[in-house]
Amino acid sequence: MLRFVREMKASLSLPGNRSTPSLCRRTHRAALLMVMIAVVSIPVQGEDGHEAWLRYTPVHDAAVQQRLAALPAVVVRLNESPVSTVAQQEMIRGIRGMLGQTLRAETRLPDESAIVLGTYAAFEKANPGLRPAPTLKPDGYWLKSMPIHGHPTLLVAASNDRGVLYGTFAILRKIALGESVSALDEREEPSAPVRWVNQWDNLDGTIERGYGGRSIFFEGGQVAEDLTRVREYGRLLASIGINGCTINNVNADSRLLTAPYLRQLARIADTFRPWGVRLALAADVSSPKSVGGLDTFDPLDPRVAQWWKDKAGELYASIPDFGGFLVKADSEGRLGPSVYGRTPADAANVIARALWPHGGIVLYRAFVYNHHLDWRNLKNDRARAAYDIFHPLDGRFDQNVVVQIKNGPIDFQVREPASPLFGGLERTNEAIELQITQEYTGQQRHLCFLVPMWKEVLDFDLHADGEGTPVRDLVAGRTFHRPLGGFVGVSNVGRDTNWLGSHLAMANLYGFGRLAWNPCLTSPQIAEEWTRLTFGEDPTVVETVSDMLLGSWRIYESYTGPLGVGTLTDILGSHYGPGIESAEYNGWGQWIRADSQGIGIDRTVAAGTGYIGQYCPAVAKVYESLATCPDDLLLFMHHVPFTHSLHSGKTVIQHVYDSHYEGALGAEELVRKWKALQGRVDGQRYGEVLSGIVYQAGAAEVWRDAVCNWFLHESGIPDAQGRAGHFPNRIEAEAMELGGYEAVQVTPWETASGGKAIECLNGRQRCTAHFNYHGPAGWHDLIVGYFDQNNGVSRFAAYVGDRLVDQWAAGDHLPSQKPDGSSATRRVIDGLALRPGDDIRIEGTPDGEEYAPLDYVEIAN
Amino acid sequence: MLRFVREMKASLSLPGNRSTPSLCRRTHRAALLMVMIAVVSIPVQGEDGHEAWLRYTPVHDAAVQQRLAALPAVVVRLNESPVSTVAQQEMIRGIRGMLGQTLRAETRLPDESAIVLGTYAAFEKANPGLRPAPTLKPDGYWLKSMPIHGHPTLLVAASNDRGVLYGTFAILRKIALGESVSALDEREEPSAPVRWVNQWDNLDGTIERGYGGRSIFFEGGQVAEDLTRVREYGRLLASIGINGCTINNVNADSRLLTAPYLRQLARIADTFRPWGVRLALAADVSSPKSVGGLDTFDPLDPRVAQWWKDKAGELYASIPDFGGFLVKADSEGRLGPSVYGRTPADAANVIARALWPHGGIVLYRAFVYNHHLDWRNLKNDRARAAYDIFHPLDGRFDQNVVVQIKNGPIDFQVREPASPLFGGLERTNEAIELQITQEYTGQQRHLCFLVPMWKEVLDFDLHADGEGTPVRDLVAGRTFHRPLGGFVGVSNVGRDTNWLGSHLAMANLYGFGRLAWNPCLTSPQIAEEWTRLTFGEDPTVVETVSDMLLGSWRIYESYTGPLGVGTLTDILGSHYGPGIESAEYNGWGQWIRADSQGIGIDRTVAAGTGYIGQYCPAVAKVYESLATCPDDLLLFMHHVPFTHSLHSGKTVIQHVYDSHYEGALGAEELVRKWKALQGRVDGQRYGEVLSGIVYQAGAAEVWRDAVCNWFLHESGIPDAQGRAGHFPNRIEAEAMELGGYEAVQVTPWETASGGKAIECLNGRQRCTAHFNYHGPAGWHDLIVGYFDQNNGVSRFAAYVGDRLVDQWAAGDHLPSQKPDGSSATRRVIDGLALRPGDDIRIEGTPDGEEYAPLDYVEIAN
Repeated sequence: MLRFVREMKASLSLPGNRSTPSLCRRTHRAALLMVMIAVVSIPVQGEDGHEAWLRYTPVHDAAVQQRLAALPAVVVRLNESPVSTVAQQEMIRGIRGMLGQTLRAETRLPDESAIVLGTYAAFEKANPGLRPAPTLKPDGYWLKSMPIHGHPTLLVAASNDRGVLYGTFAILRKIALGESVSALDEREEPSAPVRWVNQWDNLDGTIERGYGGRSIFFEGGQVAEDLTRVREYGRLLASIGINGCTINNVNADSRLLTAPYLRQLARIADTFRPWGVRLALAADVSSPKSVGGLDTFDPLDPRVAQWWKDKAGELYASIPDFGGFLVKADSEGRLGPSVYGRTPADAANVIARALWPHGGIVLYRAFVYNHHLDWRNLKNDRARAAYDIFHPLDGRFDQNVVVQIKNGPIDFQVREPASPLFGGLERTNEAIELQITQEYTGQQRHLCFLVPMWKEVLDFDLHADGEGTPVRDLVAGRTFHRPLGGFVGVSNVGRDTNWLGSHLAMANLYGFGRLAWNPCLTSPQIAEEWTRLTFGEDPTVVETVSDMLLGSWRIYESYTGPLGVGTLTDILGSHYGPGIESAEYNGWGQWIRADSQGIGIDRTVAAGTGYIGQYCPAVAKVYESLATCPDDLLLFMHHVPFTHSLHSGKTVIQHVYDSHYEGALGAEELVRKWKALQGRVDGQRYGEVLSGIVYQAGAAEVWRDAVCNWFLHESGIPDAQGRAGHFPNRIEAEAMELGGYEAVQVTPWETASGGKAIECLNGRQRCTAHFNYHGPAGWHDLIVGYFDQNNGVSRFAAYVGDRLVDQWAAGDHLPSQKPDGSSATRRVIDGLALRPGDDIRIEGTPDGEEYAPLDYVEIAN
Repeated sequence: MLRFVREMKASLSLPGNRSTPSLCRRTHRAALLMVMIAVVSIPVQGEDGHEAWLRYTPVHDAAVQQRLAALPAVVVRLNESPVSTVAQQEMIRGIRGMLGQTLRAETRLPDESAIVLGTYAAFEKANPGLRPAPTLKPDGYWLKSMPIHGHPTLLVAASNDRGVLYGTFAILRKIALGESVSALDEREEPSAPVRWVNQWDNLDGTIERGYGGRSIFFEGGQVAEDLTRVREYGRLLASIGINGCTINNVNADSRLLTAPYLRQLARIADTFRPWGVRLALAADVSSPKSVGGLDTFDPLDPRVAQWWKDKAGELYASIPDFGGFLVKADSEGRLGPSVYGRTPADAANVIARALWPHGGIVLYRAFVYNHHLDWRNLKNDRARAAYDIFHPLDGRFDQNVVVQIKNGPIDFQVREPASPLFGGLERTNEAIELQITQEYTGQQRHLCFLVPMWKEVLDFDLHADGEGTPVRDLVAGRTFHRPLGGFVGVSNVGRDTNWLGSHLAMANLYGFGRLAWNPCLTSPQIAEEWTRLTFGEDPTVVETVSDMLLGSWRIYESYTGPLGVGTLTDILGSHYGPGIESAEYNGWGQWIRADSQGIGIDRTVAAGTGYIGQYCPAVAKVYESLATCPDDLLLFMHHVPFTHSLHSGKTVIQHVYDSHYEGALGAEELVRKWKALQGRVDGQRYGEVLSGIVYQAGAAEVWRDAVCNWFLHESGIPDAQGRAGHFPNRIEAEAMELGGYEAVQVTPWETASGGKAIECLNGRQRCTAHFNYHGPAGWHDLIVGYFDQNNGVSRFAAYVGDRLVDQWAAGDHLPSQKPDGSSATRRVIDGLALRPGDDIRIEGTPDGEEYAPLDYVEIAN
């Protein structure tokens, strides 16, 4: 049986224990059965995204086919473990899907050509003459073509079982990408030992900041009965080299640590195990008190230490390869060591010591800050918190603790500088926490390929050990020779068929895994690889989708958060639509510090919060000076007047206007690009992606208008191009002739055109709003701005004269229960022949607490 | 309101009555509402076949787009009727779908370019300067581009409202086909007034010989609550010019004529009416007795005449445009006038006279024969029956009676000569009955495009009025100047999303309608037109699908019924799989007259049944002589020795062997052709069609082997090519090592390989059959022959050694409850690496009364 625990320990020289052989056998049998069914149940199904990048569709290219015709007919597995068995079956499944051949599964070298999977140890035992020269890091593999007993043989030789599986996926990926696998000699090692995902799933089946449906792990307060999706998720994760997964919300429910749940959790661990994915949990440090029967959770109290020790023993008895705990403490209302005047190091170590004998680790989140900061004090700065708290503790964390640091100092905003804490820990293991789930970056409703953003951070040189210290080397433990470290991605997949609720968003999960394995891969490499695996080899598709992905972050940034000011969203609510002032005047510290003269937080050492001083001098120098601070981070680092001139030559305020109009156009352009792929992409995914980006293009206009209106109002400086605040073709709903509809104020005001909407209130069955068209005769589009809340499904109908020209239901589930920037959306009714004098009428039928809210009608073309 | 009754009467100079204006208004409003919803509910859905050939997908071709950009923005409807309203809305819907523009709907000529829809009368009233020179037959239309008040205008001018609708569909079809609509001057008239479909639906929701799911008209003994599919069916029918539909089984349930049902039927009529489709019913001539309270149904009894008169009055009160009755009498156990010694003319006329004042008609089926014929008498001949019975009655049918004659003298066999009765009625209206539902031609599971078969009959010159009397002119009433006549298609669509249970089978429904309108259209024209409308403009797709369609009848014939012998199916059961001797030794008269020396029915005048004498001498001469009788009909007309030499030079027996092997290869070839369209056809339809033809290719082998085995056994003459009866790579299930399985005899013997199968009987949970592979090492396919009955879902698993290589469920619903030629099918497990000594094992798990029946395993490649 494969034991990552053990291997990691080996590299850490930690002590360990042995799991009972009976358990091994049990899981082994379960895995076998499971996998055999998987082999033959490859469905002839539509492309619904469920298979993600592991589609294994038939190879059509004749040249590739011919090259692959020489592949061996036998796949040998030299090891006995479930992971090796899964690897062998995956090879059979993949070859079956792509080449239509069912390989023979053997456990000994046959007298013919073969693919042979095995650990170095197993190869040594089988003695085929393989000389694995330099040893590989755990999880690494070597793909090697060589003759064995005169037969051409393809070896997947690995440091451990997990490496065998990863090497298998690597070969299948090569085949899927049309690459040759006939003369291989490739060694691959992961950049770091920790390559985990975090899921923020709640026991009731919801997922905090999850946008792909309900939990695959929990339902109704229990571990789900059917763990099929967990098995499939394990496979997806393994295919990109992920070796651990915490499955519950970082705002952890301590009940999970009680005996009834531990038995249930073992089922999940059993399901993940054949894929080399270790189960881990988010834990609440107050558990010894809240569920443990103690009257304290003081980490320095020996009873608390004993409690964690006992809990670890209990856990490892049923989950022998348990990965460890993820801890969020003293953060956003969670209890923490500060209750007892203890440090995060105290809290982390007491748990780490309990896990140590079993090979488990603690990931302690550096996301610790005071969310009751006094906003009136201009020296207060949430961005400082992580460094201020953790830097002084450097060296005080145990060897099996990893401090888990978000990429930026705030919270997954659309643009942040690299957290200075990465450079502030030399004697502490660290990991970078990246957010795959798009909390502040469009919640999978907006296309936002995050790999380029992550790359900027990973490649950023913090000069922590002199020039040439990129973040990727720090988190991998390379710079300061740490035994542990790595990558954690908040993934939050759900039960939606396509996992993340969006086909294209899966590029982020894929990209995270690929970067965790090799952070030196480039964004275009990853985008192209994912696109080819996901949509096939058509060069037009590959080029277009890659291009859409690579431009998407910049587009999203352009209409949501200019110049490093942060995502200008409703930070008190859904973190989705625009809600600019929600950032200000409260203790959360995501301030933008705007007034009638200027905007931005002064984080300079000279006059501001001093945050910039947390960077090494070489970096700090660049940020400190307006002359050198890059435009992209200007408002993160400095407070400047709206009239301040950027390096680009534009003023800040004009940049805001321009970038938002460009961003909205860019979103519209995504639609155009995607539409060119009709017929080249299967119908279902084509349609689903199209409907997503068509929505996005509308939402981008909502953002554009909200932000531009707000800045126009705040600064009083007009848009030099005359766009902001001027909508000559727009008829405000509140200005129409209303039948039953009533004008209402929208909050925040900037999220509705004209600050107002109309609603069909007071129990009315149906309301109308109409106006007379005075424009020229011709073909026109009617754009109806309305609000689609998640507490009702209103219906709308549009008439020109007495002709019904469109009707639709506001049946989306946008994250708001009122008309605002999150629920604002639009309907485009194109190709209407309008004539002067036409009566244009919108009819709204309320439902539930959604009162058919309407914002405006715009005549386009 | 459109009244086809009235128009047909006009052309017949029949008297008529007026419907109440209130009814008109009611249906008008209903139609309007219905249609407006239809306009805006064009779904963004996958291609599931539901839209059939009316997909109205966006025009992508830039040249076509540009040409169409000049289309008017207004569609004017000059008439008030529901049919005209539907036409206008259909024009809007079609243009909306294809060009993305919503036309303005007007009822008066605007001061701009327009499409104007109207009857001649309406145009005359609107006075736009149109001079409709020669008058058009009812339902005809004229598409005419001309300026009106200086504006380019496109007119759809028609003889009646239905013509307006047909003209509208014609324009939309032109647009969909990429044809120009800018300078039109086209007159179109239907070939005949009767263009009906028959549905054989039962009140319980089943459909006799229906293969597309349950009834869209009835469920649970009542008219269905939701008639959405009826409305959609009406639209499909209208689009191909069908103007009437009988909705119930010809084996009619008399309850439908009682008051409670009449009210329900009115709902169906209301639903059809806006599409110009008249509701009609199949009626049992014994109704006056069975549900009418009389003690007789003697057509000459005045009480019976009065009963039909009253019934007609009742019917027309609620369905003012009721089409009439379809009668099957004295046929296959149905009661008829023979009970009282009366003739079909008596029976038809008594009903016809009741309908006459209302404008209804009677379609009296000529499918009257004795199904208790003495098979020992070689002079007996079912093929003679229709002519023998109806020819003497020529001139004795009322003017509003149409004798409905099946295309051939037997019963929709895969090949029959044209019925001589078409030429045997000069003073009687006649219609041709064609079977769209593929009863004897593969039941929509086999691809069999019937248009070429129908064309052979329609174009066949019966010399009835001298040379140049094709059947199409006879049934259209053209030859003998009959006022009525036409085309009836047994369609049997059901609730399956794609209507007929098969995407490609819809070409038959389409083709029927197009031929009924214009029987001079060629098969390639129809095939290409349908393909382009159904699958789009990709030339590869158009060419491939057309080619598949056009060759399919010959392929099906090749493996199911050689040389005109009839479909060699189980005629006593499902009429589906092979069951050769079921035709013999019973009273049904579908004999093939086979013995150890020869085969075929001697229908010569000289020595046989004399059937050939029913044809005009010019035709009879050709059939009578072996020297001139075409090979395709040889065994229909003559009894010959197996060694008889065909015109092709082959012996009959070798032709049987050759054609069956060629047919099976042809079916396999269909798979290859279709597979080349992957990626060119949307995923859902691609997959569904593929799975259908892959099944067909297997079923074709079942047919091939059954027929060849039987002929080999019967004739004792070996296949010159050594194929028949020799299966060197096949291992009979009964010859394997069995674990629980038992050998059973299959009936008829020729439908199982070796005459036997194995079943897992006696309540066993699971049985196995295995054998040792002795062939060469290499990549092979395993073909598992098994039986998939409709009374259980057995499961099968296949192993090579201990490797599960495939598993599947026998979950199809083939029309048999036992192992036989209908349930026989196969599973192909391809790409297996076999090595000498491999143990190959099939595991069967019975379910219900299906005992996991297994026939053989074949090693291919």
